[in-house]
Amino acid sequence: MTTDQQTPLRVALLGGGVVGGSVARQLITQADDLAQRIGRPLELVGIAVRRAGRDRSDLGVDPALFTTDAAELVTRADIVVEVIGGIEPARSLILSAMEHGASVVTANKALLAEDGPTLYAAAADHGVDLYYEGAVAGAIPILRPIRDSLAGDSIRRVIGIVNGTTNFVLDAMDSTGAGFSETVERAQALGYAEADPTADVEGFDAAAKAAILSSLAFHSRVSSADVHREGITEVSARDIAAAREMNCTVKLLAICERVEGPEGQPGISARVHPALIPLTHPLASVREAYNAVFVEADGAGDLMFYGQGAGGDPTASAVLGDIVAVARTRVTGGRGPGESAYADLPVLSIGQAITRYHVSLDVADKPGVLASVATVFATQGVSIETVRQQVVTDDHGDARAMLIIVTHAATDAALSATVTELAGLDTVNEVTSVMRVEGN
Amino acid sequence: MTTDQQTPLRVALLGGGVVGGSVARQLITQADDLAQRIGRPLELVGIAVRRAGRDRSDLGVDPALFTTDAAELVTRADIVVEVIGGIEPARSLILSAMEHGASVVTANKALLAEDGPTLYAAAADHGVDLYYEGAVAGAIPILRPIRDSLAGDSIRRVIGIVNGTTNFVLDAMDSTGAGFSETVERAQALGYAEADPTADVEGFDAAAKAAILSSLAFHSRVSSADVHREGITEVSARDIAAAREMNCTVKLLAICERVEGPEGQPGISARVHPALIPLTHPLASVREAYNAVFVEADGAGDLMFYGQGAGGDPTASAVLGDIVAVARTRVTGGRGPGESAYADLPVLSIGQAITRYHVSLDVADKPGVLASVATVFATQGVSIETVRQQVVTDDHGDARAMLIIVTHAATDAALSATVTELAGLDTVNEVTSVMRVEGN
Repeated sequence: MTTDQQTPLRVALLGGGVVGGSVARQLITQADDLAQRIGRPLELVGIAVRRAGRDRSDLGVDPALFTTDAAELVTRADIVVEVIGGIEPARSLILSAMEHGASVVTANKALLAEDGPTLYAAAADHGVDLYYEGAVAGAIPILRPIRDSLAGDSIRRVIGIVNGTTNFVLDAMDSTGAGFSETVERAQALGYAEADPTADVEGFDAAAKAAILSSLAFHSRVSSADVHREGITEVSARDIAAAREMNCTVKLLAICERVEGPEGQPGISARVHPALIPLTHPLASVREAYNAVFVEADGAGDLMFYGQGAGGDPTASAVLGDIVAVARTRVTGGRGPGESAYADLPVLSIGQAITRYHVSLDVADKPGVLASVATVFATQGVSIETVRQQVVTDDHGDARAMLIIVTHAATDAALSATVTELAGLDTVNEVTSVMRVEGN
Repeated sequence: MTTDQQTPLRVALLGGGVVGGSVARQLITQADDLAQRIGRPLELVGIAVRRAGRDRSDLGVDPALFTTDAAELVTRADIVVEVIGGIEPARSLILSAMEHGASVVTANKALLAEDGPTLYAAAADHGVDLYYEGAVAGAIPILRPIRDSLAGDSIRRVIGIVNGTTNFVLDAMDSTGAGFSETVERAQALGYAEADPTADVEGFDAAAKAAILSSLAFHSRVSSADVHREGITEVSARDIAAAREMNCTVKLLAICERVEGPEGQPGISARVHPALIPLTHPLASVREAYNAVFVEADGAGDLMFYGQGAGGDPTASAVLGDIVAVARTRVTGGRGPGESAYADLPVLSIGQAITRYHVSLDVADKPGVLASVATVFATQGVSIETVRQQVVTDDHGDARAMLIIVTHAATDAALSATVTELAGLDTVNEVTSVMRVEGN
C-alpha cells in the first residue's frame, strides 16, 4: 500500500442516538472489513451529541470522541454522517460540512422532503456526494435501485408500505378484528408506536418518503407539501372487515405515479392514504412492522423490495452502505450520481389522480334506491364495477340495508363529487365508508 | 454545455438477440432521457451479429450499424455491451474491449461464473468498469444492493429463486398435482422452458448465479464448479404433496451461506437443490416464473428482492441501468466499485453444509421399526424433530406403512450417512424420498 492508501478517511458522526450508536459501533467492530471494501481505512474523528456526560460506554468508543460542538466537528472530516433528524440544526450542519469539502450521508427524511433541492445544489456546487438510503424504508435498498439500477428504465409507479407503525396497526386490526384506538395502544405497549403517534398515523412520515421516492423515480422536485396526505385514524374495524369480504386488505400506501393531466400533459401524482389492495398483490402479504416498496417500470415490469423499515441496526446498515459508497468515490476519484430533476414534472392535485373507490352506503330499504344511487354515479361519469346489497344489524340491533359499491378507475375529483352527491340523497342515510382501491 | 459534455459516449453492442434488440431499441427511443441522466449523450456505434442480412428493421436501427466483425467493433467504443452469452468469443471480445479502454456491461452469467476473476483483473488493470447486473435474476436489482447497499453490513445468507423455468414447473406441480415430465411439457408449450431444458432443470443456470452471488456476498472467489448442484428432475408429485402436508412448498433454491468448517474456520456453503420451505416464508409466495432473492444480514435483518428473472425487456432494463452507471463514471471520472475478493473464504464441501432433512421411508408394518430407525439417527448424531407414521395405499392398492421424519439441523454428511444406513435396514423397504428443508 502507498501512504495515500493508508491515510484514513475521517468520519464525523452527528447524533449519538439509536442509529448513531449502531453506526459508531460498527465503524469500530467492522473496521478491517470496511477498509478492505473501500481501499482505505475509516477513522471516526468525533460524535456530536446534544448533552455531554451521558454514559455511552456501551458503544466501545473513546470517550474523548464525544463533543457538543457539532459546528466545529463538521469542519474536520471527509465524510459527515447526519443522524440527528429534524430540520435545524441538521441543515446548517450539512451545508457547512459540504462547504468544508466533506461528503454527506444522512437518514433525514424530513429535511430531504422539505428542502432537498438546497442540499442537492450545495453538493453539486462543492463537488461532494450526498447519499441518503437510510431515509426511506430503513435497511431496504430502494433509493439506489431506483436511482442507479433503473436509471435506464422508465418508472410508471411506485407503491410503498413505508411506515412500520401504521402497517403494524392495520395488520393487527386485520388479524384481531379490533378497532383503531385499542390497536394503537397495543402497538405503543409493544414499542411499535411512539407515545405521540401523530407523525406515523396521520401519514406525515410516509408523505416525506413519498416525496423522496417521487423525486428520484420521476427526476423531478417533489416536496412533502406536494404530497396529498390522509392517515389511518378513520379506518374502522368495519372497513377492515369490508376489505376482507372483497378478498382485500387495508394498507397505508405511499403512491407515486407518472400520470397525464387533463390536457394530456405529463405529471406526477404523489399521495399517501389508506387503500384496499387485493390479497393476491405482493404488498398484501407484508405483515407486522415490515416495509416493502413495489415498483412498476416499463422495461423491468413489477419489482418488490421488502425488509425492515426502521430500527437502529437496519437503518445503520443503510447508512454504512452509503458511507462505503461515498468513501469509495473519495478513493477512486469522481462523484457518485447526484440529483437529477431534469424532467421537472409538475405534481398534479389529488383531484386529478386516477383511482378507484370502495363506497359503503347505509340506505333506505325501499324500491328505487339503487336506481337513484346509480344515477348519481352516471351523472358524474363514474363507472361502477360491482354493487352488492346486504342487510346488516347495527349497534342497536336494527336491520340496515347497505349498498357496497366498487367503481372503475376515474379521477379522484369525480369520485369525490359522486360521494358528496350521494350523501345528499334522501334515500341514503349515511355514507358509511369511502376507501380507495389500489394495486389492480 | 461545453463541447466535452456534448461529445457522445460510443456504445458498441455485441449480440442482436432478444436482449440485444431490446437494448438497441431503448438506446434510440430513450436517448434524450439517457443523455440527461448521464450528462452526455450515448451513440450506438455498432451491433455485432453472427449473420449479416437478417431483417432487423423492427429495431429502428440504421442498417449500416450491423456488422459481423465484433473484434473490430470493440476497438472503437467507450462502452461495450456483451449480450452474446457463452464463453467464447464473449471472453476474448470483452478482454479486447478492456485493452482498448472500454468499460464493459455484460449479462453473461456462464462466463462470469466460470472465469470471472480473469475479467475482474483485466478491468482493474485497464482502469475500466465491469458491470453485470443482468447476469442474475434479470430485472431484479440484486447485485448492486449486495455490492453497494450492503457494503457496510455483513451478509450471513443469500437464498434465491433465480431460475424462472424451474419455479414455473414446481409451482405448476404444486397447483395441479401433476408430475414432473408432463409439467415440463406444459412449460415448453407455454414458452417457459426450452426445447432442451437441461440447463434449467438440472440446476446449471442456478449454479452459475449462485457462484456470482456467493462471490459478491462474501468477498471471495466462487466459480460454478464450486457450487454443489442438484436439479428438480427427481421431484415427484408425491414429494410436493408431502411438502403440503407439512405446510411447506418445494422450490429450487440457490443457497449461499457463511458457515464454519469442522475446525471453526470460516467458509462458504454454495449449493443449488430443491428444498422444502415453509409457506410462511416470503419465498414460498413466489409464483410462476418470477424470481426472488432473500438476503439475511447482521445489520439489515431479512430483505427480499422480487421480480421478473428473465425476458428481453426485463434483462435489458438491468443492462441499461449498468450502461448508465458506467457512462456516469466516464463523465464524472473515477471508477465504479470493482471486484472485492479480500476475504478469500474457501468453499466447503456439501457434506459440511448445515441443513435439515425430510425423509420418507416405506417400512415394514411391525413392532420395533421406529426403534431401529431412531437408533440409526442417534448413531449418526442426527436429532429428530418430528416423526409421523401413516398408512398409504400404493399403486397396486396395497397398504404400506410410511414413516415421515424431519430432522433438526446437522451436517449434510451426517444426514447423508443416516439415509444410506436407513436404506440398509431390514425393516426399511425403501427410502421413498429425501429432501432438504430450508428457510426456518
